[in-house]
Amino acid sequence: MNIANRIDCLGTETAFAVSAEAAAFAAKGNHVYPFHLGDMNLPTPSTVVEGAVKAMRDGKTGYCPNAGIPQLREALAENISNSHGVKYGMENVAVQPGGKPVITKFIQAVMNPGDEVLYPNPGYPIYESQIEYYGGTALPYGYKENEGGFAIDIDAIENSITPKTKILILNDLQNPIGAEASPEEFKRLAEIVREHDLMVLCDEAYFEIRYSGKSQSFVSLPGMQERCVILYTFSKKFAMTGWRLGAAVGPENVISVIAKLNVNDESCSNHFNQYGALDGLTGDQTEVMGLLDVLKGRRDAAINALNQIEGIHCVTPASTFYLFPNVTGAMANKGFTDYDVFRKAVLEATGVSFCTRLHFGRQLEGETERYIRFAYSGIDIDQIEEGIGRMKTFLES
Amino acid sequence: MNIANRIDCLGTETAFAVSAEAAAFAAKGNHVYPFHLGDMNLPTPSTVVEGAVKAMRDGKTGYCPNAGIPQLREALAENISNSHGVKYGMENVAVQPGGKPVITKFIQAVMNPGDEVLYPNPGYPIYESQIEYYGGTALPYGYKENEGGFAIDIDAIENSITPKTKILILNDLQNPIGAEASPEEFKRLAEIVREHDLMVLCDEAYFEIRYSGKSQSFVSLPGMQERCVILYTFSKKFAMTGWRLGAAVGPENVISVIAKLNVNDESCSNHFNQYGALDGLTGDQTEVMGLLDVLKGRRDAAINALNQIEGIHCVTPASTFYLFPNVTGAMANKGFTDYDVFRKAVLEATGVSFCTRLHFGRQLEGETERYIRFAYSGIDIDQIEEGIGRMKTFLES
Ligand SMILES: Cc1ncc(COP(=O)(O)O)c(C=O)c1O
Ligand SMILES: Cc1ncc(COP(=O)(O)O)c(C=O)c1O
Repeated sequence: MNIANRIDCLGTETAFAVSAEAAAFAAKGNHVYPFHLGDMNLPTPSTVVEGAVKAMRDGKTGYCPNAGIPQLREALAENISNSHGVKYGMENVAVQPGGKPVITKFIQAVMNPGDEVLYPNPGYPIYESQIEYYGGTALPYGYKENEGGFAIDIDAIENSITPKTKILILNDLQNPIGAEASPEEFKRLAEIVREHDLMVLCDEAYFEIRYSGKSQSFVSLPGMQERCVILYTFSKKFAMTGWRLGAAVGPENVISVIAKLNVNDESCSNHFNQYGALDGLTGDQTEVMGLLDVLKGRRDAAINALNQIEGIHCVTPASTFYLFPNVTGAMANKGFTDYDVFRKAVLEATGVSFCTRLHFGRQLEGETERYIRFAYSGIDIDQIEEGIGRMKTFLES
Repeated sequence: MNIANRIDCLGTETAFAVSAEAAAFAAKGNHVYPFHLGDMNLPTPSTVVEGAVKAMRDGKTGYCPNAGIPQLREALAENISNSHGVKYGMENVAVQPGGKPVITKFIQAVMNPGDEVLYPNPGYPIYESQIEYYGGTALPYGYKENEGGFAIDIDAIENSITPKTKILILNDLQNPIGAEASPEEFKRLAEIVREHDLMVLCDEAYFEIRYSGKSQSFVSLPGMQERCVILYTFSKKFAMTGWRLGAAVGPENVISVIAKLNVNDESCSNHFNQYGALDGLTGDQTEVMGLLDVLKGRRDAAINALNQIEGIHCVTPASTFYLFPNVTGAMANKGFTDYDVFRKAVLEATGVSFCTRLHFGRQLEGETERYIRFAYSGIDIDQIEEGIGRMKTFLES
C-alpha cells in the first residue's frame, strides 16, 4: 500500500531500539542491568487492582462517557485542586488512555500549522514528533548544569521567541534530566508566557514521584491556569504504566475539544479500570507511599555508585526516577567520542543498558558536555549496585 | 484558549445527543426503552474476565510492545487466517485500544490531503469525520432497499469515482443498516477496486455477530488482501465494548506505520486485558456462542413486533445487532415530515428511544424513503416487546 506523505514527518521513540538491543544481548545468554526504560518493576497498589477487578466483575464492561466516568473526573478535579492550590471541576477533566494521548490531543486542539512550539531538548521525544507531524515548527530549548542541578536555559527561550511562537511545552520534574524549576525560574517563565501570549502544556507525569519537598505546578502562578493544560497520568504514581490511564486537565473549551477527539479516536478509556483508579485516588495511600520509599532507596544507591566512577558526576534530583549523569570525563578517559559507540561498548563489556542524551532529541548547538540517562524504576538495588560496579571496573580499566 | 482551525473539520457522533435526551427523559421519572445505542447489556464471557484478572494479579501491569503482546498478535493472525481463508502472520497485526482507532490510523497512514474516499452513508459517522479532519474529500455512497434487504448502490460508486479517488471504506455487515453484500456485489466491488487502484478499509466490527450462514470477508477475493486493512474488534463478539481492545490487520508496511502511530498516540494498549482477550480467542467458546443466542432471540422479537406496526416494515438481517425499519408510511400516517420531530414525539409518548437515519450522515440526493435504527444489543426481550407495543399503539392512534 502507498503510505501517506504526512508519515514522513512522524517521529518515534528511539529508546525502543535500546530495549531491543538489550533483549538481543540477553537472548545470547548475557546478564543485562536494565537502566534504559522508564517502565516499573513494582506492583500496582492492591487498592487499584481490587477496585478494577470488582468493577470488571460487576459488569462495568460497556462503553462509558467519552470524557470518563463522572466520579473519576470529579475525584481528579478535587485531587489536583488540592495539590495545585487552584480550583478545577469535572468539566476541566477529560480521561485518556494514558498520559501520552494528551500530547497529541493538546497539539491538535490548539496548534495551527506554522505555529512555533517551544519544547525541552533533551526531553520526551513525542513532543517534537507531534509538533512536526501536525505542521508546527519545533523550537528546542535546553538546560544548563549548575552546582545544584539543571536549570532551563531561559535566555535561549527568550532569544528564540518570534511572533509565530504560540506554545510552550514544559515538563517540570523532567524526563530525562530530573530537573526541577526554582520559584524564580517559574516566575520568569510565567512572565514570558504572559508577554508573548503563549499556551502551555504542563507535562506533570512525575508530579507525585518525589522524595523530599513538595512539587509546585506552573498552573498555580498568577494567570497561568487559563493558559495551561496539564498532562496527568496514573502511570507512575500508581505503578500503572501498562494500564493506560491518564487525563487532560485544563480550561473547559480545550477539554471539550479534547473530549471530541476522544469520540473520534477511541470513544472512551477502559471503563472498569477507571473505578480502580478512583479507589487508588481516594483510598488508603500506604502502598502508594511504599512505592516512593522503594524508589528513593534505588535513587540513593544509584547516585552513590555512579559518583564513585572516575569521570562521572551525577546530581541528586528530588523527583522522577531518572538520573542524568555527566559522563564527559569517563568517555574521554576511554577515548570514546560517539555516544552510540560508548553505549554499546558498555553494554557489551558489562551488561549495563542505558539511554544516552541522543534518545531525547537532536544535540543542540554548542553542547559540549556528555550525558546518559539511568532509569532506576525497573531494577532492584542489588542489581543497581552490581551493574554500576561493573561499569566502574570497565570505565576505570 | 484559542482552538486550532483544524477542529472546524472534526465531526462527532450525534447519537450521543440521543442518549443524553433519553437520560434526561428518564431522569424526569419516565420509563425508557433504550433502542438507541450500540452498547451491550450482556456480560463479558468469564474466560476473558478471568484471564484478564489473572494477568493483572500476575503483574502484567507494565508497558507492553506498541503493537501488542506477541501471543495475541499471533492468535489473532491465526484466528483471522482461519475465518477469512487467507494467510496472516503476527507482523500483519497491530493491537489497538478498540476498533475505532483503526479508522483514524488507517486514514492517517494512507490518505493524502485532497484524496477522495468513498464511504457508506448511512454509515458509522466517524469515517466522514476523519476523512474531512485529515483533509480528504468524503464521497458518500448509499444503499438501495430491495425485496430481500439492502444492496450497496454500486452504480453510484462507479459514477462518483474520479482520478482522485484513492480509498474505499467498506462496512459489510453494516451499522446502521445490517446490510450484507452478496458474492456478486463483492465481485463487482473488487473489480472496481482493482480497476481504480483503490485501498480499502474493511470495517468488520460485526463479522462474527451473525445468526445464520457464514460471513465472507472482502479480503478473501483475489488480489484484495494486499489492498485491505481490516478493522477487527473484541467489542461486539466478546461483549467487551468498554474494555477498548481491537486491532488493525493488513499489509505489513501499513501495519508498521500504524504501530508507529501507536508509539505517538498511546504507547500501547492495556497490557493485562490482552491476556484476557487471548483466552477469549483460544478458550472455550460456549459463552461466546451464548451471546449470539440471546441476540438472535431479541432480533426475532423486535422484527416481529416492528412488522406488526402499520406503515413500518423491516427486513431480517443475518448479522449485526441493528434493524433499519422503513418508517415512511408510519411517519406519513401521523403527519410527520421531520425525522427529529418524529423521534422526539415517539420518545415523549412511549419512552421508546432510537436513532434515525440522520445520525448516520447527511441525507443523500433523491432519498425519499424514511428509516430509523433500532439497536437490540442493550435491551431485553420483554422490554423490546413492551416498548414496540407502545409504539404501535401510539403510531396507529
Ligand atoms: C515526560 C513524560 N510525559 C509523559 C509520559 C507518558 O506516560 P504515560 O502515557 O504512561 O502516562 C512519560 C512516560 O514515560 C514521560 O516520561
Ligand atoms: C461499524 C462500526 N465500526 C467500528 C465500531 C467500533 O467499535 P469499537 O471501537 O468498540 O471496537 C463500531 C461500534 O459501534 C461500529 O458500529
